[in-house]
Amino acid sequence: MRATYLHGEGDIRLADTAEPSVRQPTDAVVRVVAACVCGSDLWGYRGVRGADEPRRIGHEFVGVVEEVGADVRTVRAGDFVIAPFVVSDGTCAHCRNGVHTSCVNGGAWGSTSRAGEALDGTQAQYVRAPFADGTLVATPGTPDPALVPSLLTLSDVMATGHHAAVSARVAPGDAVVVVGDGAVGLSAVLAAARLGAGRIIAMSRHADRQRLATRFGATDIVATRGAEGVTEVKELLGGIGADAVLECVGTKESMRQALDSTRPGGRVGYVGVPAGGPELPVGQMFSDNISVAGGVAPVRHYLDELLADVLDGKLDPGPVFDAEYPLEQVADAYRDMDARKVVKPLLRP
Amino acid sequence: MRATYLHGEGDIRLADTAEPSVRQPTDAVVRVVAACVCGSDLWGYRGVRGADEPRRIGHEFVGVVEEVGADVRTVRAGDFVIAPFVVSDGTCAHCRNGVHTSCVNGGAWGSTSRAGEALDGTQAQYVRAPFADGTLVATPGTPDPALVPSLLTLSDVMATGHHAAVSARVAPGDAVVVVGDGAVGLSAVLAAARLGAGRIIAMSRHADRQRLATRFGATDIVATRGAEGVTEVKELLGGIGADAVLECVGTKESMRQALDSTRPGGRVGYVGVPAGGPELPVGQMFSDNISVAGGVAPVRHYLDELLADVLDGKLDPGPVFDAEYPLEQVADAYRDMDARKVVKPLLRP
Repeated sequence: MRATYLHGEGDIRLADTAEPSVRQPTDAVVRVVAACVCGSDLWGYRGVRGADEPRRIGHEFVGVVEEVGADVRTVRAGDFVIAPFVVSDGTCAHCRNGVHTSCVNGGAWGSTSRAGEALDGTQAQYVRAPFADGTLVATPGTPDPALVPSLLTLSDVMATGHHAAVSARVAPGDAVVVVGDGAVGLSAVLAAARLGAGRIIAMSRHADRQRLATRFGATDIVATRGAEGVTEVKELLGGIGADAVLECVGTKESMRQALDSTRPGGRVGYVGVPAGGPELPVGQMFSDNISVAGGVAPVRHYLDELLADVLDGKLDPGPVFDAEYPLEQVADAYRDMDARKVVKPLLRP
Repeated sequence: MRATYLHGEGDIRLADTAEPSVRQPTDAVVRVVAACVCGSDLWGYRGVRGADEPRRIGHEFVGVVEEVGADVRTVRAGDFVIAPFVVSDGTCAHCRNGVHTSCVNGGAWGSTSRAGEALDGTQAQYVRAPFADGTLVATPGTPDPALVPSLLTLSDVMATGHHAAVSARVAPGDAVVVVGDGAVGLSAVLAAARLGAGRIIAMSRHADRQRLATRFGATDIVATRGAEGVTEVKELLGGIGADAVLECVGTKESMRQALDSTRPGGRVGYVGVPAGGPELPVGQMFSDNISVAGGVAPVRHYLDELLADVLDGKLDPGPVFDAEYPLEQVADAYRDMDARKVVKPLLRP
C-alpha cells in the first residue's frame, strides 16, 4: 500500500509499505476513505520540530473497517468510522474523565504511544487502529459521500474548535473573539455559533477566510493585529473586551492577542499547539481575572455529540476543506497549505 | 485619630492623622471595629515591593458607619458594614460583570484608585469609603460581637479562598488539593468543603495549621513539598492527581506544586498574589488540559452569599484569627505574623 513519509524539512514523499494487519485482539484495520493535512503537520514540514526522518505522518482520517481483532466489540468489518487524532484505550482513569488525550496507553497517530507502540501515520491507504473500541466511532450505516468532508473534520479541526469554545465556556449571548483563521479557527467560529454566542469577531486578513468565517457565523471581521487589533476589538465591544476568546494559533503573539482582547473576568480557550513554548503572563491574568483553559482536544469525548449534529444536518463544517488531492499528490497538498494557497487540503487515497 | 504607616522594610509605625470626612456625595466615613494584617501586607513589610514610604497600609476592615454623603443610598449612619479589600463603584461594566476588582474607578485600600484618589489604608481608627453604595455591605442589624472575626474574614481571606474554589470549579465529590496553609489556604479548605468536595488534601507542615485545616474540613494532610509532595498527593488519589487544586501562595514553586498535583483535565484556581512574576508553563497545561483560573478576588461579588451563610451559622471562618492585638500594637502583629508565630492577627482600634 501507499503511505506518506516526512523525510525532512519540506520533503514529503509517498512510498510503498506493507499493508497493516491485526496484531492485538483489540486492533482494527481501517481502509482510509479520506485523510487530510493539519496545521500541526506543517511544524514538522517546516523543520520547526526535529524528527527521526523518514517517518509516517498524518493523524486525521475516516474510513471503512476491513478487519477487527477478536476482542473488538463496538465496530466491525464494513463499518464507516471516524478516528480522533489520538488513540485511546477508553478504559483508563483519564479516558473515563473524558480526557482521552491523556490516555495512559494512547498517543497521536504517527507517534509512539505511551504503551510503546508505533502508531501509523494516517495519510495512507490503510491504518492499523489499536484499541479500536476506545478510539473509533462508527456511523449508523454508510453515510452519504457528500458528508465525508464534514465527518472528517470531526477527526480533529471541528472537535478542536469546539474544545476551544467549551474551554472558554462560551454561553448564549457571549461576545466571542476568534484568533486564527486556519481550519481550526474557522471551526471555532462555527462552534461558538453553535453554542449560541451573540457576537463573534473573527480576526482574519484573508478575503477567502473572512468569507468562510462569515458563512460559519462570524458577525464581525477584524483584519488588524497586535495593539491595533485589540483596539478595534474593544471598540466593537463597548470598550470592554470579549467574554470569551478562542486562541487557535499557538504562538506567543497570538496568545498575547487573545489575552489582551479578553475583558476582565473573561475566559481564553486555547487549542493552538504552543510553538516555541510561549509562557503565560500570570501577572496580567491575575490582575484581570482572565482564565486560560484548553489544550490538546479530547476529540473522542466530543464525538457522539458532534456526530449527531452533523448527521442531523445541524452542523456543516465540511467547507473548511477548500481543496482535494489524490493521495498520490500529497506533497502538493503540503506545499499549497504551507504557502497558504489552501485552508485545508483533503486527501483521497 | 491613629493610623498605621509602613515606613520601610520591617518598619511599621502608628501615627496621628486627621480624621477623614465626607468629600464626595458618594462617600461614607466608617469607624473601624476590627481590621487585620494580610499576607500581602507582608510583601511591603519585607521590602519585596518598593513603595513611597511612609504610606498608610491595610485593606481589610469591618466597622460602623459614622456619616454618609448626600448620594449614598444603601448604607447609613449606625450601620455595621463589611468592606471588601477593593473599592468599587458598583456601576461600571466590570462591576456589572461581577469583577469589581477591575472597577474603572476602583482600587485597593492603601493605594491610589484608578480614578486618581488616594484610598485610606484601613489599619486605622477611621476610614473614608468612596463609592459607599458600590463598596460596603451592611449587615441586617448590629451583629453579635462574637461574629466579628467571621465577618472580618469576608473582607478578604474567606472570600479569597472561596474565589480559589469557585475559579477551580470545585463540585460535589471532587478531590481537591489546597496549596498554602496561611489564612487564605485555610479559608480555601473551608470553601471547598462548603462546595461539597469529597476529598480535601491540605498541604501544611505546621501542626497548628494542620489542626485548623482538619477542623475546616480537610480529610488528609500532606506535610511534604515539591516532587515528594506531588507523589504523596497522587498516592492518596489513585495515582491520578486532583480534580481541582487551590493555589493560595503565589510563588513559582507553589504554582508548580499546584500544576503537578492536578490530574489531566483538572483545574487550578489561584489567588496567591504572583510574587516575582512567575510565568505559567503553557506546554504542560496544554498537554494535560489543565486550566488555570483565578486572580484578585472580587469579594464584593461574593459578599451577599457568604454573609448569609455566616449569619445563618453555616460558615464559621473566624478561627483563622488566632491572635488579637490592640491597634497600638500593630507593629507586634506584623512582627509575629512575619515570623509565622500567628496565622492571622486581628486588630482592634
